[in-house]
Amino acid sequence: MASSANGPIAIVAGSGRLPIQLVEHLEQTGQDYRVLAFRGFAAPELRKKAHASVDLLDLKTILHTLEGWKPRAVSLVGAVRRPGFSTLLGAYSALRNMQEVKEVIARGDDQVLRGAVMLIEERGHRVVGAHELAPNLVAARSLSGSLKPNEDDLQAIAVGLDLLASLSAFDIGQGAVIARKHVLAIEGPEGTDRMLRRVAGLRQSWFGLRRRKEGGVLIKAAKRGQDLRVDMPTIGPRTVAEAAKAGLSGIAIGAGSTFVLEQEETLRTADRLGLFLIAVDLPWMESTRD
Amino acid sequence: MASSANGPIAIVAGSGRLPIQLVEHLEQTGQDYRVLAFRGFAAPELRKKAHASVDLLDLKTILHTLEGWKPRAVSLVGAVRRPGFSTLLGAYSALRNMQEVKEVIARGDDQVLRGAVMLIEERGHRVVGAHELAPNLVAARSLSGSLKPNEDDLQAIAVGLDLLASLSAFDIGQGAVIARKHVLAIEGPEGTDRMLRRVAGLRQSWFGLRRRKEGGVLIKAAKRGQDLRVDMPTIGPRTVAEAAKAGLSGIAIGAGSTFVLEQEETLRTADRLGLFLIAVDLPWMESTRD
Repeated sequence: MASSANGPIAIVAGSGRLPIQLVEHLEQTGQDYRVLAFRGFAAPELRKKAHASVDLLDLKTILHTLEGWKPRAVSLVGAVRRPGFSTLLGAYSALRNMQEVKEVIARGDDQVLRGAVMLIEERGHRVVGAHELAPNLVAARSLSGSLKPNEDDLQAIAVGLDLLASLSAFDIGQGAVIARKHVLAIEGPEGTDRMLRRVAGLRQSWFGLRRRKEGGVLIKAAKRGQDLRVDMPTIGPRTVAEAAKAGLSGIAIGAGSTFVLEQEETLRTADRLGLFLIAVDLPWMESTRD
Repeated sequence: MASSANGPIAIVAGSGRLPIQLVEHLEQTGQDYRVLAFRGFAAPELRKKAHASVDLLDLKTILHTLEGWKPRAVSLVGAVRRPGFSTLLGAYSALRNMQEVKEVIARGDDQVLRGAVMLIEERGHRVVGAHELAPNLVAARSLSGSLKPNEDDLQAIAVGLDLLASLSAFDIGQGAVIARKHVLAIEGPEGTDRMLRRVAGLRQSWFGLRRRKEGGVLIKAAKRGQDLRVDMPTIGPRTVAEAAKAGLSGIAIGAGSTFVLEQEETLRTADRLGLFLIAVDLPWMESTRD
């Protein structure tokens, strides 16, 4: 077994604030850790703390580094822009047979990351989600800004949860924008920010001079059966700002299964821009902490 | 009754090629017709043939004109960009009570058009779809270009039909782009062209230099329970060109419930750009002509 009960926690880090906040949490709680940063992805602030750097697709070096560290757990955190099909094929095929690799990649985004998790686990490592290492980064059921959803918003949230539940079977649907019962956008691989800009664009072209707030809710939730160690839904102050630009009245996120970056700043931004922000129970997830 | 068995067919015409092709069909088959063109929407070619013009939201004049024509049937054809909520409210409320109008508008895009159909029907007119007046404009089950879908494409079509069936309950889902089993985009109110450009954008940013054809299928279909007199799915040569730019390998459309503009030119464009184009039976629609 490559995992050791006394070893450090290994953070394999992509871009964004999440790896930074995870490392801060580990420091504050006195946990031993090592950071393996992806070159070109990890933020400068994190790179200063990195114990090693590696190219995104250099699976051999990643596995070799982890072998040396003998970590008690490994966590893959932060975004990596999806590399091309043929690049992935080359990287994985150094370690697996070609047909198996093709099948993993063909199954979509999540599956590519799940493939990486599988490879790491096969070497005897325990892979855990950042939410297990730092539960305080996850939306508690009690999370809420100062504002509350109105009746239209509650209806939109109910429709959105139904919609995302229906979409789970298709391995998509981390997010949607609903106004009353009207679906304005469904998130695809382009991500939440671009979806929100799409809604902003729709409204500008339809309504001429756009009023500041036309209503509608952003709903973000983990998919049914989603491996939360991989690609867990994440919001932060920027999500709130984009939602405001799209004229939405608020945001609802899955309790217990959504990261909230810079939680205080995120709630403050929502209050300042006049949006509600609440956590809701997902009927298809296990019950969550309060 | 405002409808008269001997009256002309009244075409209430928005933008695009569909009203033009419908009028050509009525001329070729020797049917008496009148065109009421929306100012700022109807194409110049159609405006020459228009018997009257009207502002989009001037429901009073529309109803008054139809009353004078005593048509045997009325058809609303061609796109109109969705006007603002408050504008609609003003136009409808001249004829209906405010609360009722608010509810129609709140229910979404289709409902606004259905509201207009309802108003016209209440005055005693028979409202018919362009597909009833000119069935030759609709995709026959036998429609096909020279190329055929491969196994990946057939899988994508099956996934797409399942997806659109699941979405029908939410009053969206006229279109989606699927590659193998992977959902790349779901069409919202932005329309098919913008959805295809989104896919093109995704691929450019993910894969660097984009190869000409990466695969994937555009699926367009009428929703379950959709009133085909309102907002029937439509493709044409431009749709094929946008699908090619997005790197797709083909297009599948609902047989018997999709308009194909300039059918020969559309099929020629698909052949020329290397895309398949086929009509498929929709499990949720009545069986269609061959």
